[in-house]
Amino acid sequence: MSLASTVSETCKAARVASRQLAPKSTIEKDRALAALSGLLRTSASALLEANREDLVAAEARGVGPALLDRLALDETRIEAMARSVEEIAALPDPVGVVVEDRRRPSGLRVRRVRVPLGVVAMIYEARPNVTVEASALSIKAGDAIVLRGGSEAHRSNLALGRLVTSALRASGLPPGAVQMLESVDRDAVRLLVQQTETVDLAIPRGGEALIRFVTEHARVPVVQHFRGVCHLYLDRGADLEMAVRLAVNAKLSRPAVCNALECLLVDAGDAGRLLPKVAGALIAGGCELRGCPVTCAIAPEARPAGESDWGAEFLDRVLAVRVVDGLDGALAHVARYGSGHTEAICTPDPAVAERWRREVDAACVAVNASTRFHDGGELGLGAEIGIATSRVHWRGPMGLESLTTMKWLLDGDGQTRD
Amino acid sequence: MSLASTVSETCKAARVASRQLAPKSTIEKDRALAALSGLLRTSASALLEANREDLVAAEARGVGPALLDRLALDETRIEAMARSVEEIAALPDPVGVVVEDRRRPSGLRVRRVRVPLGVVAMIYEARPNVTVEASALSIKAGDAIVLRGGSEAHRSNLALGRLVTSALRASGLPPGAVQMLESVDRDAVRLLVQQTETVDLAIPRGGEALIRFVTEHARVPVVQHFRGVCHLYLDRGADLEMAVRLAVNAKLSRPAVCNALECLLVDAGDAGRLLPKVAGALIAGGCELRGCPVTCAIAPEARPAGESDWGAEFLDRVLAVRVVDGLDGALAHVARYGSGHTEAICTPDPAVAERWRREVDAACVAVNASTRFHDGGELGLGAEIGIATSRVHWRGPMGLESLTTMKWLLDGDGQTRD
Repeated sequence: MSLASTVSETCKAARVASRQLAPKSTIEKDRALAALSGLLRTSASALLEANREDLVAAEARGVGPALLDRLALDETRIEAMARSVEEIAALPDPVGVVVEDRRRPSGLRVRRVRVPLGVVAMIYEARPNVTVEASALSIKAGDAIVLRGGSEAHRSNLALGRLVTSALRASGLPPGAVQMLESVDRDAVRLLVQQTETVDLAIPRGGEALIRFVTEHARVPVVQHFRGVCHLYLDRGADLEMAVRLAVNAKLSRPAVCNALECLLVDAGDAGRLLPKVAGALIAGGCELRGCPVTCAIAPEARPAGESDWGAEFLDRVLAVRVVDGLDGALAHVARYGSGHTEAICTPDPAVAERWRREVDAACVAVNASTRFHDGGELGLGAEIGIATSRVHWRGPMGLESLTTMKWLLDGDGQTRD
Repeated sequence: MSLASTVSETCKAARVASRQLAPKSTIEKDRALAALSGLLRTSASALLEANREDLVAAEARGVGPALLDRLALDETRIEAMARSVEEIAALPDPVGVVVEDRRRPSGLRVRRVRVPLGVVAMIYEARPNVTVEASALSIKAGDAIVLRGGSEAHRSNLALGRLVTSALRASGLPPGAVQMLESVDRDAVRLLVQQTETVDLAIPRGGEALIRFVTEHARVPVVQHFRGVCHLYLDRGADLEMAVRLAVNAKLSRPAVCNALECLLVDAGDAGRLLPKVAGALIAGGCELRGCPVTCAIAPEARPAGESDWGAEFLDRVLAVRVVDGLDGALAHVARYGSGHTEAICTPDPAVAERWRREVDAACVAVNASTRFHDGGELGLGAEIGIATSRVHWRGPMGLESLTTMKWLLDGDGQTRD
């Protein structure tokens, strides 16, 4: 079968299964998730064997230690996957939730209810746990999903996919609701995101190159997460101890993630008080600072920033620092260089905080809190399938609700329209 | 300036204006809408003059009477536009509505609030009132909009656009928030829907060819409305008088619109009782019936249907009629031939009604009510910018809420993440 036929048939099978899965009850879906967490625990040795083959092949190709670590499974990581499936099962079912319920003057009852989205295509890299979490989230939301993981994790993903299929079959749900697109040919991704008849939404998750590739070729809607260029603005009068704590946590608690801080902005009128302590704490934490001229004058440990440092996603212990002309200067910098991910302010002034909330255009806007909270689990959504920085369909952490759409229900007793 | 530059500059200007408009208050936006309805009333003669030029040009090109009627303005239609702007001003502002508000164990407050979507591109045909209604809806939602109307209505649309710009300027809102893309070159549409940096959502509204063209070329998200192939299923035991009333209203009250009935399905076990009266009433109303063999046996006035009649959007006094094997037969027919727009049932059985609601996959599912109710005004949304049959971002009548997105707001007192 040609690659084009394989992709098209895979997506058609997902569409058929999605129709069977959509009307299933919460109990039936949760039973499949319980079966999956059980299977993960009892199949650890088979999973580790498949994963070992992936690791050997990756090492042979000279893959670096960071990627090898992301790829590797062990008993602890398998147990974590099993637990995350149980947590997803414990979440409330979004399907059937009534968003709106009103009665019209004619007596017609009008409801808007959440229903499964249909078929989701998920394109991702390395980490095998995404295979399990994306499957569990889509099953719970009543969606079918087509998974296209990274070639490095090919064998691990297939082994995990077989467990998902077994769990669906054992629970009386359509096994076709989770499809693994097995081809390692990159052209499969292009074809996958062009299946307008059968795929409702594509979610690319990985490096910027992958997301640009998907966006360029997609004919189906794409929920995007390009980059996390997060800022923290220290406003005049900011509590010094809080400013230090927020900057250090946002930058250094996990520098390689998308909600980590990449640029610190400081009010010019208060930089003399704020910057020395904040810069000192960051440097003590092993962070390199790249500052504007004023920053470098106040904190001589900073090296001069170049134009390319503004808006840069370092994903490392590097931070751009700029002294700005108050709130308006900070807003202008964020509008120009931000990526619409997470923008934080540290301020004692409620009026300034309110302008920040209103005027910053980003998926998540934080006042006196670390940028690191922008995460499905931290915000109380449970597991997330990604964070959307695009504006349409969904924005921010993508939990179960982001995998649903809606349907209007009209109930009458014979009403006709004049 | 090249066409590509014109389109790109127009969209950039809209983006700039959208940032200025987004934080404006409800009062400021409603003031601009009040100014617009006033200007429409005081500028009637200039509008009629521009419209007359469009009509003359259209007649010279041999445009048919139906299109000429859609294009024509008169005092009554101008007053209707002014009133629709007033009605939009009276709608509640979706911006700032808190969708979710919870406090996390750390004390962090997490809110999800509605914010303007940004920049909408609207591509439509003929009717000049769409220019006014789309402008008013986007202003109220805090969005900028780029309007690309049909070439027939070019002069009318420009005259209306000038009024919108004046109303914005007179009210202290950014006049660039409503942009008219003046080129009549169709390539402008292709370029418009590829402005990924500046356009957040494209809404094509018109014939299927226009929507296919936009979908094919778009690189920005598109909310689609392909076709309305609406069904009514008469279930066993259906109230005969109600069945007649629903079928006649759905088919004949306005046959040329998307929520009009295109196919009647009748339960085989009750067709002998139901079909003669229903068919008779439809024929008495001037409707041509195209029936399956069983239909033709019961209602000899029906001519035999061909395969292409199932799933056809007649938009005329023509109806396909098929006798099906109960609820399952009706569900299978709708799944195969429906367009996901509106699917209605007439049944006395609550269990059958509930299966219909759950198992039919459409934007709107009606029980014992006419398909014609699927309309923003009828469902209580006020004016609509279209009806979406696509599943992502929005589904069903697109009122103000469909022109917004969301933003997560975090409020803390110094929380950091472990």
